[in-house]
Amino acid sequence: MTDETAVPKQPDYSGLKAVFINCTLTPSPAFSHTECLMDMVRAIMEDAGTSVQCFRSVDHDIAPGIYPDMTKHGFDHDSWPAISEAVMASDILVIGTPIWLGDVSSECRKIIERLYAHSGETNDKGQYIFYGKTGGVVVTGNEDGVKHCAMSTLYSLGHIGYTIPPQADAGWIGPIGPGPSYGDEKDDGGRVGFDSDFTQRNATFLAWNLMHMAHMLNQAGGIPGYGNSREAWDDGTRYNHPNPEYR
Amino acid sequence: MTDETAVPKQPDYSGLKAVFINCTLTPSPAFSHTECLMDMVRAIMEDAGTSVQCFRSVDHDIAPGIYPDMTKHGFDHDSWPAISEAVMASDILVIGTPIWLGDVSSECRKIIERLYAHSGETNDKGQYIFYGKTGGVVVTGNEDGVKHCAMSTLYSLGHIGYTIPPQADAGWIGPIGPGPSYGDEKDDGGRVGFDSDFTQRNATFLAWNLMHMAHMLNQAGGIPGYGNSREAWDDGTRYNHPNPEYR
Amino acid sequence: MTDETAVPKQPDYSGLKAVFINCTLTPSPAFSHTECLMDMVRAIMEDAGTSVQCFRSVDHDIAPGIYPDMTKHGFDHDSWPAISEAVMASDILVIGTPIWLGDVSSECRKIIERLYAHSGETNDKGQYIFYGKTGGVVVTGNEDGVKHCAMSTLYSLGHIGYTIPPQADAGWIGPIGPGPSYGDEKDDGGRVGFDSDFTQRNATFLAWNLMHMAHMLNQAGGIPGYGNSREAWDDGTRYNHPNPEYR
Amino acid sequence: MTDETAVPKQPDYSGLKAVFINCTLTPSPAFSHTECLMDMVRAIMEDAGTSVQCFRSVDHDIAPGIYPDMTKHGFDHDSWPAISEAVMASDILVIGTPIWLGDVSSECRKIIERLYAHSGETNDKGQYIFYGKTGGVVVTGNEDGVKHCAMSTLYSLGHIGYTIPPQADAGWIGPIGPGPSYGDEKDDGGRVGFDSDFTQRNATFLAWNLMHMAHMLNQAGGIPGYGNSREAWDDGTRYNHPNPEYR
Repeated sequence: MTDETAVPKQPDYSGLKAVFINCTLTPSPAFSHTECLMDMVRAIMEDAGTSVQCFRSVDHDIAPGIYPDMTKHGFDHDSWPAISEAVMASDILVIGTPIWLGDVSSECRKIIERLYAHSGETNDKGQYIFYGKTGGVVVTGNEDGVKHCAMSTLYSLGHIGYTIPPQADAGWIGPIGPGPSYGDEKDDGGRVGFDSDFTQRNATFLAWNLMHMAHMLNQAGGIPGYGNSREAWDDGTRYNHPNPEYR
Repeated sequence: MTDETAVPKQPDYSGLKAVFINCTLTPSPAFSHTECLMDMVRAIMEDAGTSVQCFRSVDHDIAPGIYPDMTKHGFDHDSWPAISEAVMASDILVIGTPIWLGDVSSECRKIIERLYAHSGETNDKGQYIFYGKTGGVVVTGNEDGVKHCAMSTLYSLGHIGYTIPPQADAGWIGPIGPGPSYGDEKDDGGRVGFDSDFTQRNATFLAWNLMHMAHMLNQAGGIPGYGNSREAWDDGTRYNHPNPEYR
Repeated sequence: MTDETAVPKQPDYSGLKAVFINCTLTPSPAFSHTECLMDMVRAIMEDAGTSVQCFRSVDHDIAPGIYPDMTKHGFDHDSWPAISEAVMASDILVIGTPIWLGDVSSECRKIIERLYAHSGETNDKGQYIFYGKTGGVVVTGNEDGVKHCAMSTLYSLGHIGYTIPPQADAGWIGPIGPGPSYGDEKDDGGRVGFDSDFTQRNATFLAWNLMHMAHMLNQAGGIPGYGNSREAWDDGTRYNHPNPEYR
Repeated sequence: MTDETAVPKQPDYSGLKAVFINCTLTPSPAFSHTECLMDMVRAIMEDAGTSVQCFRSVDHDIAPGIYPDMTKHGFDHDSWPAISEAVMASDILVIGTPIWLGDVSSECRKIIERLYAHSGETNDKGQYIFYGKTGGVVVTGNEDGVKHCAMSTLYSLGHIGYTIPPQADAGWIGPIGPGPSYGDEKDDGGRVGFDSDFTQRNATFLAWNLMHMAHMLNQAGGIPGYGNSREAWDDGTRYNHPNPEYR
């Protein structure tokens, strides 16, 4: 059992950088429920010294596609290269998505597609470019689907090289059926969802686990470079993989 | 760019312990395609010094349910407590599942349910009991669904406290439609799927990333205990979560 | 616009047969929240004259596996053949599942696997054996995942030959986070979830749409037997599929 | 057993209308692998007399959002109203999507969102506007995910009112790992995937089952209007739903 005195001192994570991408369908300056919950996570991170840069994807002219820069593939404009530069310079990525019909938004899929577009790039260990970074997800809706959206998004991040710390999702939905969304004003002057102990706890754990993992990975110089270099593999290194034909 | 000489020395991970749970529907001693691929991952881990203990769930009398020991809830037998003891004592958990209708096996869901049954237990930091451990997944089928099975299983592991390293899944499927499964003997004496560079690479990366992450977490004494203690949260500690009512 | 007088007369569906399979993890006689909601759907069907036969899968000794009768594949007992006989004799199948970690129960996957085991059987038109039947799903949990469970289960039913009518799912979850489940007694003497207009509506629409579709399919003698006979396809019939090599 | 002489006469479905929406990320006039497989389905339908209208969503300026016409919600342009008019006038909807990271494309999610935007509209029976229509899906990728994409898309169509006939998906993927896509030219002059008996069969069954179901629904005047009118429900009609408080 722990007691209050056993709570460790708050770590100082002032060297860490995070990028938040909000995949709401609602352009600024309109209110985004998803952003409202992302702001909780952001506040915790900033309080710990981590710098946070936020993008609302629908505000930017991000082309659809699976290349790092779609202006080289027939599109006149593409805001992704600027956003991806921030992602590449950061330790932490948090994707936020609303839920539509139980699944992530089209904006969320577009961001995943554009991140995936970099899967051919490698770091100086020959690992996929996102190795050494850590990622999480924030999901809001009025009804159902937080876990489904989280599993799809976290899997995508892991697939391209992100480390996923424990409990890397936070979300809010109301009771089943249509209803108000996170952050909507209530008649009593409060805000919908702000009283959810569950959502507050998950947002807190998400924020801290991302920072802990990012710090740990930075201290270790990323994921060790043995057994996972795409470049070395392509050059023939097999890292003692058993020769299966002769087993 | 890397070159052959730049491949780092193979780490010695002789202190690590892994548990593999194979969720095939086929009881021993019959051949399990999923186990065949899990054995590749196991061989890499054992070669690095990690000890690996394997269970085929369907061979054991594991009760359905959501409590750690179902003999206390009306079942005459339950093999889970013995298996869970091994899981608790290990650093790494690898779940293997065949694909049926594009999704994980019933045995896989049963294992997930029984792991989830421990979500009320905490470690000496007050974190969920699986914090500090790392997990991955192996998936085989003859047709389609590796990623879907992986995202569901990895999400479940992350939800209960496991850290998911990059590219924490390996799998094999054949071309679309019914066909042979991983490890089936071919007319030419070879084995189906053994020639898949993609599967070999993913199995290798999976094995090494799990060991790297387990080692890193062990070195760090697990996930730092700030901001993620279920016990401290329940005692009222809020870790600087913003008081949302006053924002 | 409709008005009260425009509500059509209730159809008489006394010739229809339905099978309900409840995939709770809780054996009888303990209360099943999922069954509690399935009973709403059943009451509507029975009121319309449809006969309903119910199974709670965990009460039966159903072997894991992918064959119609696992006693022919090494298992001592298997209750599935008796249940599958009822399924084969019915027009409607309703699967009920609780939600665990955002996904269906292991019992639900086991039932899907056993249904899939019949995918090699065909009716007298050469179609898969479940053609001409119609299916739906009921999902309950205390937190999140109705749609995810529904999409997986309905897809499986459709894949093996069931027709899925509109809005073929009904479910209930509470607000995000742990909490009471459907049908739990409340302090005021009521039952949790019984006041959900959304759940009541979906349960009603599910019941009626299944009966309408079953009746329509019965009237039509099932799905017409052109373009979908597995037997005829295997015999070489191509139903004017374009010869793609020469397009 | 069937024999060739038992194959029924090909039905004439010349009165039916279908809309195909291809959710590739690739703008015209570039080749779309997904369209290549959709064209197989289209050819079968057109041969049976059904008229088919095709849209490639990325060629159109479809706004993100959840309203039928986003020009009334701050967007300068929105091509959706024209496309939705075609959807509303048709009996059949086929959505095609490529697979990215095991899931549907962002364009596919955008189309689902815009279809969902009409969920407040009802037909003259008070049912959701898509009642009486039938839908299916075509999926292509080079690796894995046909069933996952199909289950998500078909569920969305069912949720808004579409009837899903048996085996309402067709797809193609190659062996696991990166590789050529459906319709790519091969060295021998053939086209990738065109020799897949499985894909041909599923495309054929999909086409015919959609037409059979559309015809059956047209003959019946749609789904009968008892037990499923949103308008009547909102007016208080309960269709014999049991009064749960008194059970």
